[in-house]
Amino acid sequence: MDSAVVLAIAREQGFACHALSVRYGQRHTSELDAAAHVARALGAVEHKTVTVDLRSIGGSALTADIEVPDSTVGAAGIPVTYVPARNTIMLSIALGWAEVLGASDLFCGVNAVDYSGYPDCRPEFIAAFERLGNLATRAGVEGAGLRVNAPLMAMSKADIVREGMRLGVDFSHTVSCYRADATGAACRRCDACRLRAEGFAAAGTADPTRYVP
Amino acid sequence: MDSAVVLAIAREQGFACHALSVRYGQRHTSELDAAAHVARALGAVEHKTVTVDLRSIGGSALTADIEVPDSTVGAAGIPVTYVPARNTIMLSIALGWAEVLGASDLFCGVNAVDYSGYPDCRPEFIAAFERLGNLATRAGVEGAGLRVNAPLMAMSKADIVREGMRLGVDFSHTVSCYRADATGAACRRCDACRLRAEGFAAAGTADPTRYVP
Repeated sequence: MDSAVVLAIAREQGFACHALSVRYGQRHTSELDAAAHVARALGAVEHKTVTVDLRSIGGSALTADIEVPDSTVGAAGIPVTYVPARNTIMLSIALGWAEVLGASDLFCGVNAVDYSGYPDCRPEFIAAFERLGNLATRAGVEGAGLRVNAPLMAMSKADIVREGMRLGVDFSHTVSCYRADATGAACRRCDACRLRAEGFAAAGTADPTRYVP
Repeated sequence: MDSAVVLAIAREQGFACHALSVRYGQRHTSELDAAAHVARALGAVEHKTVTVDLRSIGGSALTADIEVPDSTVGAAGIPVTYVPARNTIMLSIALGWAEVLGASDLFCGVNAVDYSGYPDCRPEFIAAFERLGNLATRAGVEGAGLRVNAPLMAMSKADIVREGMRLGVDFSHTVSCYRADATGAACRRCDACRLRAEGFAAAGTADPTRYVP
């Protein structure tokens, strides 16, 4: 849902959007099918899925033989669903594609709620990546520079739901659950499900999430 | 050859080394077999190859249907063999693996000669990546921090050859050529071949490179 709202925001700002998903070995691959659908519905120029095999390094409940736990939101420390360096890797791939396209802006959906323990969801991280991206690429050496936008950074999940509703995002096609089944039906009990449900409740909006029976 | 010398340097400094290669869609996959051999020969704890499909974004003579040119060293601008964001992507994957391992140091072989046009081979880039890595990971949030080492940064190719000879690197097993054949035999005419040959000549050392007939 975060990625869908970010795409809607970028579209509203007038950007021609090239949407990127990353198949990194996540359990919940139905999010990739959902992303293709959402990208079309929101008018992206194209949607691309790039594969990187993070299962070969493991270290997370999403990419190794570690069980995804029921929600531990509020617990201390970094959760086992944290995928080492995932946002760095995904932004790096986006940076490469941006350079091929000659794009001026990257958009990503990291936000403060996700920083209930994920180090790569903080404003300092995004600022450091923007700085890196401008040193790493033609844009920084020869061009006008590259911006990294994280418009959801300071929003709560309820804010994100409201912003999505305002922009006409159809949340019934988005998949958040870490244990989503092949059809995108959600488990109701993992961190991602719990944060999503709390967001819809706080926004006072009906939650269209399909749950496994 | 740069990666091999870096590994030898890290081993001399006493590090237990986990060697990473990235299969990113490069034409010259014989470098991956060579890397596995070199890692064993230099006493790495393990060698791992992670796949990321950069052919799906293209934009380089190494990963798209663009011909690798004969050497253009000395020409202005960024060469067509530049792979958009490659070093950022490879370091990001290394960062993820380092986090899984609990490693304290990353080593990479970028150097000043490679900066004959590649933006992601500059000291500012390495410094910015180190800063990013410390914001992106557990090491930066909970741990003692992570260092990114680029010991070849200020060396010429001749310096790298001499350092490798001092450390007992067997250069006959390293592959540099962008157009290397399946056996690792080199083309003699691309930028990578030319820089390598000039390095051996300047170091006054016999060059064990095998060339295609």
